[in-house]
Amino acid sequence: MPVVTMVGGGQLARMTHQSAIALGQCLRVLAASEDDPAAQVSADVVIGSHERLDDLRRSAAGANVLTFDHEGVPVAHLEALEAEGVAVRPPSKALRFAQDKLAMRTRLTALGLPVPDFADLAGDRAAARGVLREFGAQHRWDVVLKAVRGGYDGRGVWLVDDEQQALDLFDRADASTRLMVEARVSMRRELSALIARSPFGQGAAWPVVETIQRQGQCAVVVAPAPGLAPDVAEQAQQMALRLAEELGVIGVMAMELFETADGGLVVNELAMRPHNSGHWSMDGAITSQFEQHLRAILDYPLGPTDIVAGPVVMANVLGAAQAPAMSMDERVHHLMARLPEAKLHLYGKGERPDRKIGHVNIVGAPGASVDEVRERAERAATWLSTARWTDGWDVHGE
Amino acid sequence: MPVVTMVGGGQLARMTHQSAIALGQCLRVLAASEDDPAAQVSADVVIGSHERLDDLRRSAAGANVLTFDHEGVPVAHLEALEAEGVAVRPPSKALRFAQDKLAMRTRLTALGLPVPDFADLAGDRAAARGVLREFGAQHRWDVVLKAVRGGYDGRGVWLVDDEQQALDLFDRADASTRLMVEARVSMRRELSALIARSPFGQGAAWPVVETIQRQGQCAVVVAPAPGLAPDVAEQAQQMALRLAEELGVIGVMAMELFETADGGLVVNELAMRPHNSGHWSMDGAITSQFEQHLRAILDYPLGPTDIVAGPVVMANVLGAAQAPAMSMDERVHHLMARLPEAKLHLYGKGERPDRKIGHVNIVGAPGASVDEVRERAERAATWLSTARWTDGWDVHGE
Repeated sequence: MPVVTMVGGGQLARMTHQSAIALGQCLRVLAASEDDPAAQVSADVVIGSHERLDDLRRSAAGANVLTFDHEGVPVAHLEALEAEGVAVRPPSKALRFAQDKLAMRTRLTALGLPVPDFADLAGDRAAARGVLREFGAQHRWDVVLKAVRGGYDGRGVWLVDDEQQALDLFDRADASTRLMVEARVSMRRELSALIARSPFGQGAAWPVVETIQRQGQCAVVVAPAPGLAPDVAEQAQQMALRLAEELGVIGVMAMELFETADGGLVVNELAMRPHNSGHWSMDGAITSQFEQHLRAILDYPLGPTDIVAGPVVMANVLGAAQAPAMSMDERVHHLMARLPEAKLHLYGKGERPDRKIGHVNIVGAPGASVDEVRERAERAATWLSTARWTDGWDVHGE
Repeated sequence: MPVVTMVGGGQLARMTHQSAIALGQCLRVLAASEDDPAAQVSADVVIGSHERLDDLRRSAAGANVLTFDHEGVPVAHLEALEAEGVAVRPPSKALRFAQDKLAMRTRLTALGLPVPDFADLAGDRAAARGVLREFGAQHRWDVVLKAVRGGYDGRGVWLVDDEQQALDLFDRADASTRLMVEARVSMRRELSALIARSPFGQGAAWPVVETIQRQGQCAVVVAPAPGLAPDVAEQAQQMALRLAEELGVIGVMAMELFETADGGLVVNELAMRPHNSGHWSMDGAITSQFEQHLRAILDYPLGPTDIVAGPVVMANVLGAAQAPAMSMDERVHHLMARLPEAKLHLYGKGERPDRKIGHVNIVGAPGASVDEVRERAERAATWLSTARWTDGWDVHGE
């Protein structure tokens, strides 16, 4: 059976390994350390850095495909590997648009896809400062400053309230950090269109989901997005599938979207890998995003993306601000006593404030109330984070 | 998080590892070789023999629980480990009934559970020969000879047609092989009642399934058993739960049953571990047998055993008598093209005739026809075994 190497040993690689096992494979992982979430559980681990070409080469040796747990690999390295015959999927020509928000915005604009107004703040500092002042004034300072590269989970994104704050941020920024500015979108909610595309050109789209962000990172995902008009859902799927084809994406791709106050769509971010907004599919869809990513990059025919039963809600388990009063193992015991149906996914990570250390899926029965399913998912995840029940229930009866 | 050691590196350990990952664990496997199905995919492998106490000790060191992929570990070794404080689950006092068919039959009889008539053929050869002749005549030679220990997947079980054949088998048997004889049960079909029990005493029963055997080994499982009267299903579940409690079983237990021609139940075999008749639960039940086994042996509260959507059919993929015309990887490609919804589970084993090398689950939509779901499952499994479509469809269009 084929060998797939995944660059990065995080939770996405860990969960991809679970799917690889079913397909008769063992995922090879390029991990920074043996303690990485995926390195803890796979029999085929290469210790090294995604920033060193030699380490990438070692991890790709003898593998059929090289793929990614994150988008941080330098494009020049990927181009070098491609020149040496490594099947890099998604290929560098596509992946660079997931690394560089400015290139992504520019390309999407050229393709006629809806993006927020934006301006490039790279280049000459004084000139860029002028661009920022003009753009900000035009948008009444309802703008967002972003790092062009490397931002995720709320990092590299700054919401500003006025000119002074924007200029302060700009002036304080490290000269090596390329910045851009975007108009803030007046939105109703955030959505994610998750799709997969194979080298053969086959595409598959899961139902569009609603994502709820907290402190700039994904907290809850509701699948499918409640009350989303079917034509808007289809438009989101078609936009994602079309973009994947235009860019030559291979594998799973998440297109994060804003649903605007007037019911339109605006593209926010792109991720070319399994994505937090697709974790619900592990228990709630016929084909999970991790199995689908493997199928896509290996050019197997793709699997059905239908929901298995009723609505599904995923809630992330975050490290708590204060260490909980009981161990994670004890918390798991109590969770299973109170919500035995919760599908738990723990990543083997240490608990640090706001760090994603796991998630919970609740699969509703057909016709179940989304609110009821969501309440259970959030109750479960908050319990695992904090050892506190959101409804005030006290495990000790005190 | 806890560490679980599983003795044996076969497919059951491989699939248990998939569930361990979700619970924040890595399954430690005592495997005979690094090529064993579970050893291929787990980061925590101890190479050794389940027949050597020192190897068992090494594998148990630092683990919270020791459990089993098969029932072949000598009871004396388990008792020694228990005396040293190892949490052996299921404990030796229970597991010995899964190792010794005669002890099992005797115990079940004492508990008033329905078993076929049987007689012990151990001890003095001449006396045992007399017992066999008398038992056979009494049952018109409609009998089965069985090895008391070590039989599985059709090994150690001999159907006989007449006295001569029975006596020949008896006379030819190795003196070290303890034998027993049983009356053949006039049955409608075979069933399996899969349950789990925790040290706390919590029990959980999946829907009773129908199992279809071929050449003495499980070929197809239909969940739930079609047309099974609810009271008979409940009787089977209650029998399995009661037995597990009486014997002190911890973990998953399968009770294989005959449904007799007159609608009654007779217990055939017991397995105290995840079992082939429960593989459907990986895709078709809210809690899979592998997750449940871990929950049970770790004394976590158990998960719901409900079916997620419609009827589920599991079909085993067996090594073919003749090497197929294309590689397994090519067969997987074609399978996914024709039956993209098939949930594939490959074990990483070499293909040898009649060897279990994987299985396929098809999850029917609510209300789907069992026959239609079963046809797809068997078509998929036969294709993977032989590279031939059961319906004559020709992939090459020749």
